[in-house]
Amino acid sequence: VKQSQLSANSVELGEHRHYMHKEIFEQPQAVIDTLEGRISQDHVLVSSFGHQAEEIFKQVNQIQIIACGTSYHSGLVAKYWFEDIIGLPCFVEVASEYRYRNPVVLNNTLFVTISQSGETADTLAALQQVKKIKQEKNIATLCICNVPESSLTRESDLIFLTHAGPEIGVASTKAFTTQLVALALLLTAVGRSKGLMTEKRENIIVKGLQKLPGLIQKALEHEDVIKEMAKCFADRDSALFLGRGTMYPIAMEGALKLKEISYIHAEAYPAGELKHGPLALIDEAIPVVTIAPNDDLLEKLKSNLQEVKARGGQMIVFEDEKSNVDSEGNMRVVKATSNVGRITAPITFNIPLQLLSYHVALIKGTDVDQPRNLAKSVTVE
Amino acid sequence: VKQSQLSANSVELGEHRHYMHKEIFEQPQAVIDTLEGRISQDHVLVSSFGHQAEEIFKQVNQIQIIACGTSYHSGLVAKYWFEDIIGLPCFVEVASEYRYRNPVVLNNTLFVTISQSGETADTLAALQQVKKIKQEKNIATLCICNVPESSLTRESDLIFLTHAGPEIGVASTKAFTTQLVALALLLTAVGRSKGLMTEKRENIIVKGLQKLPGLIQKALEHEDVIKEMAKCFADRDSALFLGRGTMYPIAMEGALKLKEISYIHAEAYPAGELKHGPLALIDEAIPVVTIAPNDDLLEKLKSNLQEVKARGGQMIVFEDEKSNVDSEGNMRVVKATSNVGRITAPITFNIPLQLLSYHVALIKGTDVDQPRNLAKSVTVE
Repeated sequence: VKQSQLSANSVELGEHRHYMHKEIFEQPQAVIDTLEGRISQDHVLVSSFGHQAEEIFKQVNQIQIIACGTSYHSGLVAKYWFEDIIGLPCFVEVASEYRYRNPVVLNNTLFVTISQSGETADTLAALQQVKKIKQEKNIATLCICNVPESSLTRESDLIFLTHAGPEIGVASTKAFTTQLVALALLLTAVGRSKGLMTEKRENIIVKGLQKLPGLIQKALEHEDVIKEMAKCFADRDSALFLGRGTMYPIAMEGALKLKEISYIHAEAYPAGELKHGPLALIDEAIPVVTIAPNDDLLEKLKSNLQEVKARGGQMIVFEDEKSNVDSEGNMRVVKATSNVGRITAPITFNIPLQLLSYHVALIKGTDVDQPRNLAKSVTVE
Repeated sequence: VKQSQLSANSVELGEHRHYMHKEIFEQPQAVIDTLEGRISQDHVLVSSFGHQAEEIFKQVNQIQIIACGTSYHSGLVAKYWFEDIIGLPCFVEVASEYRYRNPVVLNNTLFVTISQSGETADTLAALQQVKKIKQEKNIATLCICNVPESSLTRESDLIFLTHAGPEIGVASTKAFTTQLVALALLLTAVGRSKGLMTEKRENIIVKGLQKLPGLIQKALEHEDVIKEMAKCFADRDSALFLGRGTMYPIAMEGALKLKEISYIHAEAYPAGELKHGPLALIDEAIPVVTIAPNDDLLEKLKSNLQEVKARGGQMIVFEDEKSNVDSEGNMRVVKATSNVGRITAPITFNIPLQLLSYHVALIKGTDVDQPRNLAKSVTVE
């Protein structure tokens, strides 16, 4: 059934100049497809993760997420969600480190691997390794991936397929967005199975996810403004991305995207770490991209922005319509979204960062869909 | 008693051009001072952490380390040690993120804060926050810091003072090294108290720590070679640092040091993540610094180096005398150390990275001891 999505149409460029651009604009549909059959009215269907899912989730005491690159960033967002929203410990690590150290694996862990292709070598190896102590520690394995019949799906107890459709651009966009949707569904499914989430909270999350395609659509409408802003990266080789909370992994993903396709050395920091070193980098030559949602941390973030501004940093701020970051001098502000919730905010704020990296790459004249040195699936170590 | 170390002599530059240089060369002595009275023959004196330490350590089920900047990197090294060597879960997070999210705090956690000054605002706030659930969750608090009578020491159940002596240079060097020594002692003290470490293993660790001042001394002797190598950063604005295992946080610290004092945009990656994005950055213009100890991961690392080399990257490799990384073409290799163990390796390999950043800063002509925009203690958020 899923194979039908791989129709000839979906791999043609159509009006788009690059697959990456096409895939960025497919995201509202990719979210719809990923939600379809997984939610019913106000509920998440726990069985979307497999027939045994509910029984397994009830026994889970913590989540261990293993992934690489972009998929790792989706896991980092989920850590904030799991601990904040349902109080379940969640640990996240890159596969290449996890598999070669001697990690402690706790009893009753749900071991979650995330990979677009389902073939990422280090992630697969980490899964195979943990399976050796599966019985002894009562570990269940779940993979979130975009390719049915992939190695990860064959090796896992539970499978959640992101229905993003084929992703051709090397820099992942719609796969990342649907991974976040999958993790939000997992959060809800585990929360409800374990009695850690009220029905009311579940309803709020499900309603938020239903609004997500529209929120992404609206964020995509800022393309022209972002295209204009991309010009200030024309002669830059370095950039910093800042965020707090779930926006920190989103900043990481934004920096990775820019790095991958424009070859600009972009790096993300949690905004609170600025004073502990990276502030020394700030001068007129380094653009600083910041994500400023309208949340409890907004005032702290504004004070971080003032520090950067005072040192001549060129700033680009993606804010909520209600955030009201002062747009003056070297501070350019895009009102990227509004009315987003705790789950929908990081997913939505990622969209303008994708567009930014895409348009910077166009200006730099790089090969957007096939950036140098990189392959779509990293099937070797 | 500790105040006596703050003698006039110790804050004079002597033969050194900068405090940072002086402090780098004080490290063998700083390690001796930090070990003094804390080990006895082949044992770690658990009471070095406080009179109740043994009783508290027996109840500890996991370690949560909270710190910022350089101190955070020492915590990351400790995570590998705790999980690998004594099988105790260890979680590490930057204070500014931890304090503002809603983290799960497990019962019987040893909550460890690390800060040179003992006044780092976010770290202190995280400690104060966790103290509210101290009784309920049976949490014990320990601070590792360099300043007696500081706020962290006043707020913690257990205190371990690193006897690094006053650190004047804004970029931390000897404080970091002694934090790692403190964490190695903590590993051993907790391991022995909980029966998770054999006496034999303890003896090996203690002997390794006793050898450390000599190992650091030898590493310092490579200064002339490193000074020469620093020249290849003269016209560079970006750099990557690579490591695997405990050398990944050491690479992070090396990158932070270079960033802080030379304003070069240096970023660290676990070498296994190269293919997931950062490889796109590699061309002739970006130096890649790699730490290559003679361990199980050496062959994997060599294959990572080949990928970088094949793409024209300029490489600087700090290796063990027995690592035998091919020194040819665009690969410059320093045999930085030999005969290091699991504990002494990361501490020793950090030394040449300190010297590298120092000499690059001299070439760049920056203010080494007072880099722009940074303060020695971050006592505000």
